[in-house]
Formats: sequence, C-alpha cells, structure tokens
Amino acid sequence: MNQIKIFSPATVANVSCGFDVLGFCLDTIGDEMTITKTEEKGIRITKIIGADLPFEAEKNVASVSALALYNHAKPNCGFDIEIYKNIKPGSGIGSSSASASGSVFAINQLLGQPYNQTELSDFAMKGEAIASGCEHADNIAPGIFGGFTLVKNTKPLQIVALPTPSNLYAVIIHPQIEIKTSQSRAILPKQIQLKNAITQWANVGSLVHALHTNDYKLLSESLNDVIVEPHRSQLIPYFKEVKENTLKAGALGTGISGSGPSIFTLCKGIETANKVEQAMKDVYSKTNISFKTYVSKINTEGIRIIES
Amino acid sequence: MNQIKIFSPATVANVSCGFDVLGFCLDTIGDEMTITKTEEKGIRITKIIGADLPFEAEKNVASVSALALYNHAKPNCGFDIEIYKNIKPGSGIGSSSASASGSVFAINQLLGQPYNQTELSDFAMKGEAIASGCEHADNIAPGIFGGFTLVKNTKPLQIVALPTPSNLYAVIIHPQIEIKTSQSRAILPKQIQLKNAITQWANVGSLVHALHTNDYKLLSESLNDVIVEPHRSQLIPYFKEVKENTLKAGALGTGISGSGPSIFTLCKGIETANKVEQAMKDVYSKTNISFKTYVSKINTEGIRIIES
Repeated sequence: MNQIKIFSPATVANVSCGFDVLGFCLDTIGDEMTITKTEEKGIRITKIIGADLPFEAEKNVASVSALALYNHAKPNCGFDIEIYKNIKPGSGIGSSSASASGSVFAINQLLGQPYNQTELSDFAMKGEAIASGCEHADNIAPGIFGGFTLVKNTKPLQIVALPTPSNLYAVIIHPQIEIKTSQSRAILPKQIQLKNAITQWANVGSLVHALHTNDYKLLSESLNDVIVEPHRSQLIPYFKEVKENTLKAGALGTGISGSGPSIFTLCKGIETANKVEQAMKDVYSKTNISFKTYVSKINTEGIRIIES
Repeated sequence: MNQIKIFSPATVANVSCGFDVLGFCLDTIGDEMTITKTEEKGIRITKIIGADLPFEAEKNVASVSALALYNHAKPNCGFDIEIYKNIKPGSGIGSSSASASGSVFAINQLLGQPYNQTELSDFAMKGEAIASGCEHADNIAPGIFGGFTLVKNTKPLQIVALPTPSNLYAVIIHPQIEIKTSQSRAILPKQIQLKNAITQWANVGSLVHALHTNDYKLLSESLNDVIVEPHRSQLIPYFKEVKENTLKAGALGTGISGSGPSIFTLCKGIETANKVEQAMKDVYSKTNISFKTYVSKINTEGIRIIES
C-alpha cells in the first residue's frame, strides 16, 4: 500500500458538563486527505483545497503531527499530504484536530500500524498545539477512537473510550462568525465556586453512567454546564434562543461545541434530530448571520479509510 | 409483621474524587435497630445502646427521619425504635446516616413498602440534617441502595445506583480522635482552581467507567482527590504515612472517608485487603492514638433485614 485516502471527521469537545475532557465524533462532516508514500524522505503538504492554510511543513497542523510520528518512527521513506478541507477552521467542531489526526492515522496505516490509538493521539496533539497554543486531546480522542471519549490525563496521555447509545444523533449549527480563541479563553475564570464544580462532576459521572446504560433521560439531565457555558455563551449570538428552541423540539441537551461558535445538540433518533435542525434554522433564518447545519449519527468508528 | 430487626451498615462518602456525590456501602460494620409497630401513635426512641444520643424524638436523627416519613404516610399506628449503635458518632463512616436511614427503611417495611429507595433517602436526609446541619445524601444513598452510588442532585433528590466490581473490598482505619464538623468544613476553600476541577471531573468520569467495566487499574488511577484531601488530610494525624503504606501494600487507592478522621482504602481481593489492614495497623501501632480497623466486602445490598 503506497497511497491511502481517508475521511477525518469533525468532533464535538466538552459536551456541556465535560469541559476539557469529554468529546464525541460526527459522521456527516469531515475532511478528506490523501497521503502518498514517497521515496524522497520528509513530510510535504502538496495540496490544500477548501481553506487558506500554510504549506510549510512546520506550520501546518497536519504536517506538524505527521512529523512528530515521522521523527519517532524514522522510516526509510517520506510522505506527501493532500488536504481536502470541509471543516471550516475556527468553527468549533475540531477543524485543526481533524487535520492533525488524519495525517497520523493515514501514515500509521501506510507504515503497517506500528502505533496504537493513544500513541497516534499523542502525535496528533503536537499538531493541535500549533493551532490552539496548547496540547489538548478533547477533539483528537473522539476522531481517533470514535464515539464518546474521556481524556483522563494529557501528561501522560490517557484516553477512556466510552460506549455510545445506538440511536444517538447530533445536530450542529455553525454560525459563520469568528470568535478568537484568545477571547474565548480570556472569558473563562481561573477560579470557580466549589459548589458549581460539585454539580459539574456529578453531571460528568451521571453522563458516563447514562452512556453505559443507554439511559437517554439521565443523559439529558446530565447535559448541563454551570461552569463554562454561562461565560462563553455570551460570545455566541442567539445561543439562548437556539437552546430554548431545540430543547422544545425534543433535543436531549444543547451546548457549545468546543469553544464555539458552533452549537451542538444530542437527540434520540433521526426524526427528533431533523426537527431539532429545523428549530435551529428557525432561529438563525430570522437573523442576518449566515449559518450551516449538520445532522449526524454519532460516529463510533472515527477516522475511516475511503480508498487504499 | 409488627416488629423488624435490621442491620444498617456504615458507609464511605466522597470516595476521593467524588466529593459530596459519591459513596459506597460497607458490610462488616453497622448498627442494629429494632422497630416495633404500636397502637399508640407517634415515634418514640425507647432504647439506645452503645452511644450517648438523645431520646427526644425531635433531636435524634433516627426519629427525625422517621417522623418525616410518618408525617407523610400518616399511618393509623406508631413506632418504637431501639438503637444498638456500633458505628461511633463522628467516625466519618456514616454513623448518623445509618441511624437516619435504618429507621425509615424499617418503618417502610412495616407499612408494606409504600416508598421507593429515593423517597426513603429523601426522608433520611431530614434526619441527617439534624446531625450535620445540612441535607446531604452521600452517606444515605449507599446505605439504602447498596453498592456505589452517585447523588446527582439533592433538590430534587436524584440518585444513580452504580455497579460494583465483584471482588472489591474496603479497609477502614478509624483513629479515635475527634474532628469537629465545623472545623472540617471551615478548612475547605469556597473557590477552587478550574484546572483542578477539570482533573477531578475527569477522575469521576473514569471512576464511573471503571466500575462499569470492572477495570481495577483505571479505578485505582481514578481514586485521586486534588480538591479536598490536600486540606482535610492536615486534620488527620499520620494520613500521609497511612496512604503511603497502604498503597505500597497493594491498595487501589486511599483517601479520607467522608470528612474523616477515618481513612478508607479500596482493594482487589480479600488477601490484599488483609495486607492493607496490617499496613494501616503498622503505622498507627507506633503512635499513642487508639484506633480500630475494619475489612469489608463492598455491600451491594445495603440495609438488610435480620429478623421480621
């Protein structure tokens, strides 16, 4: 195998109560990447379609993560990377993470899979760090493992793959506005109230239990964020209206995807998911902000091979 | 059935990472209570053996919780309560909770079980509030439900019964010292660092996953408390030494039971539990502090009927 084409899906980090630790994987939106093994050593970005991103290997997240793996594996070959970007950078559904994870997943395949999923996530974090300024894995883990994941530690990296109820769908709305990462970080307090933290960890615990027991009611009751959402939702226009309208339409829960501006919901069944998508559209259609929506089953496979 | 004798077990609240929400139930230490249905209406404490506790119905936790149930059920009878106290008040293994839960469990049996476990816990919280100054259920829930429990909410009360790995044992050491509740509360900060809270909720999530998957290694790695233990452990002499020695002896984790002074460990298998008990004894035998130790399988049944 000298060439591989993969689909690297978008992902939702935080999942309301699980700031910095929880995430899940989408299916209907993602990047495609073609990686070719070359005699010439090194890592090169040879094509980027769909976004204005750097070609320099040490500046593009896909090549930075690839280089981390490459410098560890020291193979007697090189790799050309073509990126077909569908996930808009800055959308809050793991655009940089999809690039960082996709390249290492594909190169690992071309090398005969010397690395496991946690090791791949560790390499991908090096790329993610270029985009976000710090190494975190809450978007990387669901892309590489699929389904729901919990990042227990980052140093050393430890990822817990959680089960996914079979009839669970996500609906995303991406308002086409820019929120600077620096802004969405600066708005978070460094200190929080102990009583709010207790509420949050009770919710994380019950959310994990709900995933294990297919308990949609408990899942719904656990999708609450008393720490981050009250701050960051201020940066997303019509967040409150989208939340109200989607919950009314039957969503199990609605929250900020990553650091926004995308908003996610989780829904039981495709019919509810379609209604919830309409409920989101109803809010944003009345504004002058462009937007896109996506309905997706939770992707339990993660990154997948399209052609090899 | 006009009389019932029950065993109301000791419990461990907090379980390192789950301050105020997690708890589990012990088996080899607990109170006994005999409750008798009477023609005379009302609730009376008729005997207390083993501790110096009030007989006035509105001052004893067992009768306060019983009265909460009684005033709700309005039965055409009354109840006499005899308490045989084995769990020392102030030990940190749910002494007041065992009294508060035991009486409502027993009366519910004598009335033909009109209330479910959550409703019983709600009544028991009224008794617990007399002892601790506020309504909480982190000791009550494991006593009434058995096994591991997560208190998701207190208002309204919502309890999640978690699974228990089959070969899990607890070892407790109770140093015979007094820590005032007011002191153990005052030492806690009202504000905590967000980054520590994130560590804590990652641990709660992975602990719940570990219980579901019988993953003892992950359970061990999740038994960490970066929020409360650094403060409260200062009030418990030789806490650090007990922790070091028990972990060396093979304990999965060691932490403060409730607000102390008891220290708990969780262990895989009875052999390790016995070694860990010895490791605790080794530390405290060298001090001039009296102590008791208990080895117990995790009690998945909770309060149980001895005679009826």
